Amino acid sequence: MKTPSSSATNLNKKNLEHMVTMNDFSKQEIDKMLELMTLLKNARKDNAIPELFKNKTVGMIFEAGSTRTRVSFETAATLLGGHAIFLSKKDIHLGAKETVEDTARVLSRMCDIIVARTNSPDTIEGLIREATVPVINGLDTVYHPTQMLADIFTIQEHLPDGKELADLTLAFMGDATDVCRSLLLICTKYGINFKQIGPKKYHLEDKWLRLADINCQESGATYEITEDIEKVSECEVIYGDSFYWTTQLEEKAERLAAFMPEYVITNELMKKAAPGAILLHCLPANDKEEVTREALEGEYSVAFDQSENRLTAQMAILIYFTHKFIKEPTIEQIKFHENKINDLLKKL
Amino acid sequence: MKTPSSSATNLNKKNLEHMVTMNDFSKQEIDKMLELMTLLKNARKDNAIPELFKNKTVGMIFEAGSTRTRVSFETAATLLGGHAIFLSKKDIHLGAKETVEDTARVLSRMCDIIVARTNSPDTIEGLIREATVPVINGLDTVYHPTQMLADIFTIQEHLPDGKELADLTLAFMGDATDVCRSLLLICTKYGINFKQIGPKKYHLEDKWLRLADINCQESGATYEITEDIEKVSECEVIYGDSFYWTTQLEEKAERLAAFMPEYVITNELMKKAAPGAILLHCLPANDKEEVTREALEGEYSVAFDQSENRLTAQMAILIYFTHKFIKEPTIEQIKFHENKINDLLKKL
Amino acid sequence: MKTPSSSATNLNKKNLEHMVTMNDFSKQEIDKMLELMTLLKNARKDNAIPELFKNKTVGMIFEAGSTRTRVSFETAATLLGGHAIFLSKKDIHLGAKETVEDTARVLSRMCDIIVARTNSPDTIEGLIREATVPVINGLDTVYHPTQMLADIFTIQEHLPDGKELADLTLAFMGDATDVCRSLLLICTKYGINFKQIGPKKYHLEDKWLRLADINCQESGATYEITEDIEKVSECEVIYGDSFYWTTQLEEKAERLAAFMPEYVITNELMKKAAPGAILLHCLPANDKEEVTREALEGEYSVAFDQSENRLTAQMAILIYFTHKFIKEPTIEQIKFHENKINDLLKKL
Repeated sequence: MKTPSSSATNLNKKNLEHMVTMNDFSKQEIDKMLELMTLLKNARKDNAIPELFKNKTVGMIFEAGSTRTRVSFETAATLLGGHAIFLSKKDIHLGAKETVEDTARVLSRMCDIIVARTNSPDTIEGLIREATVPVINGLDTVYHPTQMLADIFTIQEHLPDGKELADLTLAFMGDATDVCRSLLLICTKYGINFKQIGPKKYHLEDKWLRLADINCQESGATYEITEDIEKVSECEVIYGDSFYWTTQLEEKAERLAAFMPEYVITNELMKKAAPGAILLHCLPANDKEEVTREALEGEYSVAFDQSENRLTAQMAILIYFTHKFIKEPTIEQIKFHENKINDLLKKL
Repeated sequence: MKTPSSSATNLNKKNLEHMVTMNDFSKQEIDKMLELMTLLKNARKDNAIPELFKNKTVGMIFEAGSTRTRVSFETAATLLGGHAIFLSKKDIHLGAKETVEDTARVLSRMCDIIVARTNSPDTIEGLIREATVPVINGLDTVYHPTQMLADIFTIQEHLPDGKELADLTLAFMGDATDVCRSLLLICTKYGINFKQIGPKKYHLEDKWLRLADINCQESGATYEITEDIEKVSECEVIYGDSFYWTTQLEEKAERLAAFMPEYVITNELMKKAAPGAILLHCLPANDKEEVTREALEGEYSVAFDQSENRLTAQMAILIYFTHKFIKEPTIEQIKFHENKINDLLKKL
Repeated sequence: MKTPSSSATNLNKKNLEHMVTMNDFSKQEIDKMLELMTLLKNARKDNAIPELFKNKTVGMIFEAGSTRTRVSFETAATLLGGHAIFLSKKDIHLGAKETVEDTARVLSRMCDIIVARTNSPDTIEGLIREATVPVINGLDTVYHPTQMLADIFTIQEHLPDGKELADLTLAFMGDATDVCRSLLLICTKYGINFKQIGPKKYHLEDKWLRLADINCQESGATYEITEDIEKVSECEVIYGDSFYWTTQLEEKAERLAAFMPEYVITNELMKKAAPGAILLHCLPANDKEEVTREALEGEYSVAFDQSENRLTAQMAILIYFTHKFIKEPTIEQIKFHENKINDLLKKL
């Protein structure tokens, strides 16, 4: 295709990076993102966030409902001086009247970064195939990378005295969800021992463990996939998630029977955990199922701090992936264009 | 719950105020809001509105359709330098996959104020229970406080020569709607005599009159609930509203039979009103039912000025409820965070 | 209606212009819009677009789905410092609980410009009847004027060496769509010879040709409506569009049988076109129907440059139609209002 006339930022795809899973990034790279989160959270406390995304746009594609991912990206863009465009599946032609790849091409010409919550990793792959701006996976059925940034950051904020990340063990209670899978990988990358605790039928498949093995070799972390609820006693972080997904409603009764009451996060379960243990939950929480209301609101719960850190993470993501493509104009350039345009407007 | 790490503005709920009904506020407080409206409307005329909501966000929850409330809040946020996030019920998990209270907690961490149009006062109450930012009732089934601010302001703008609010009588034509109820209370608070004129079956219930009694004792206002259409001759303000709500479509025929043609606002009815009387309507108007097209567009109609004042009111509301939580950064703080972040970006 | 108190920008409708079809504008006026596009595209390349729509709002009504029109207007508003409000038919009362005219009145009081994608030209006409801000037709069933600006601009960017617009012939392949009709008129206005090439049953109706006749007299352009596919050999621009619209799905089989394979844009067809011919497509493209994937991505294709120019066009449109109503405040005015409001806030 001919493209000489474009003003789109990065048509040659030079230095273009996407975020599909945190496991694609080195610990050093993720550390930089976490450091950026710290700086941005501090700046937010002083209401002094630099406008690093000034008048820039995020194209946000949502194939499924969302509260946290949606609001956190939209507020993050606003705090940085830019704007997020909410494109729900019913409002655009994605995948129906238009291929995912063509949608990626078009959004790349108009937006500075694309975020997509999809019902399939194929959509993310299709977007990446032709996008010329960064594509961020806002949750597909496999991974939930933006959640991981918020989670590691939150754990770091609430480290027990004298401990560091590599001293911890995290227990994920429940099904082998996208969050479970993503946590296995980020924990083992960061030296955090990982346990999935739940009924055998819902244990992580082998292929994910093979990926974790590589991380463990590097970091020294371990993982364990177990039915034994007593293992929470070794864990400083207890993590909750829904026992089923909206697409699994026909399995709901079967799943609840398998998970409840044994694997429900209760006040009693939190007492069995390691001393000073904290509770995380990716939310939304069903307080009649995987977690009790008492536990979710217990003094050990950091679930709502964690949700606030979704916003902290999205600010960092917007900047991390776009800053190299956004050039600061010189005062001469600003004056030049302003004068040209004002001269024309006077003639209208 | 542990919350030491948060940057959310007001986790301790100190000085937090919400807007459920205008009747919760003193006349002195409402006067301040009206004064703020005057200043903001004047600033808008000069295109010189200070950016008092700069890069801040409103989380707007809509359980029902809306034109005026939606567009007025979204434009108000923009005029003040901020952004409104439109969350329709179908796009978020509110009340379905997530409790109203948890949604309030999460939105409070990401947004600076919450506006909600709900199908029940329970939702507003649930939001307020856990919100740590101000919650504004954008219409529930009981009250419509943001409309009231616009209405009193509009009446004040169109006062007959030499008269003040306490000299007026307002006739609400029709059913005991949220607007009717809210007008009864704000009018009697402001010394405006109030009449509901309509068929007996649709008169205001006693409990609302008891609340109005308290206002009347203070202000000297009176109210009358009557079937007698001739009473419009005592009224300088005629107010129209739909004869039924979207949830009452099965009663539509019965209601229209009860209200029409007697209580329809026509040019003839306006002539029977007190000299110089004006027509208000909260809109949308059904010009085949509660008001004729001729009346709605009559020279006595201020209905569209009134709709513009929805925007004036929302600007004032955004500032009134958030200004104490929004701190201006110092130049040192701005520089400090800018330098920190730019130093990190150079290393990426 | 009484309107003395309003701060809405242009209640007297003085100098108010709308965009229904490009054919309502003179070549001189369109040239100014194209010049503005050039300046804005250059400014975008330097990330130095003046904030000429600072804190202003576009009310965007969408009765049908959209990717390009939606995202291009929303990004254009953001790039210019303003905000676009996305109003899908299901979120507002337009035409159901409220007349189109009343919606126009209300949006005019709150927004600075209205864009509408409608299912009927009646809606655009109704909006224009009562709007006191500019109304832009974002595609109805008859015309697609914002697309035309992008198209002419794109053709101009890709002119063969030594040629100008009036030297070209454009072939529209397919049905007499809104785009076909709009192209006939803008091409003949600009001296570009126009051909519709497709089966007789789907040829442009006579009334459109009568309008084109007037343009041809002025510009010297010609047009031809033909079934003869060999005529592409005379054309430097080949233009693709869907063979049916979403409301014509019951005709889909019949239409595909009539158009395919003869009128499909393929690599072979492009080779038959005039030397150096380029391919445009308004998108979304169905690569199993009116165009092959190979052609759409061929080196002669400028379809995605063209889609980026939708954004270039929308920036120009926002400024062209509103700049005369947006007044720059003086420093004194800014200070005056800021002081007044801050004084009041101190007393709250």
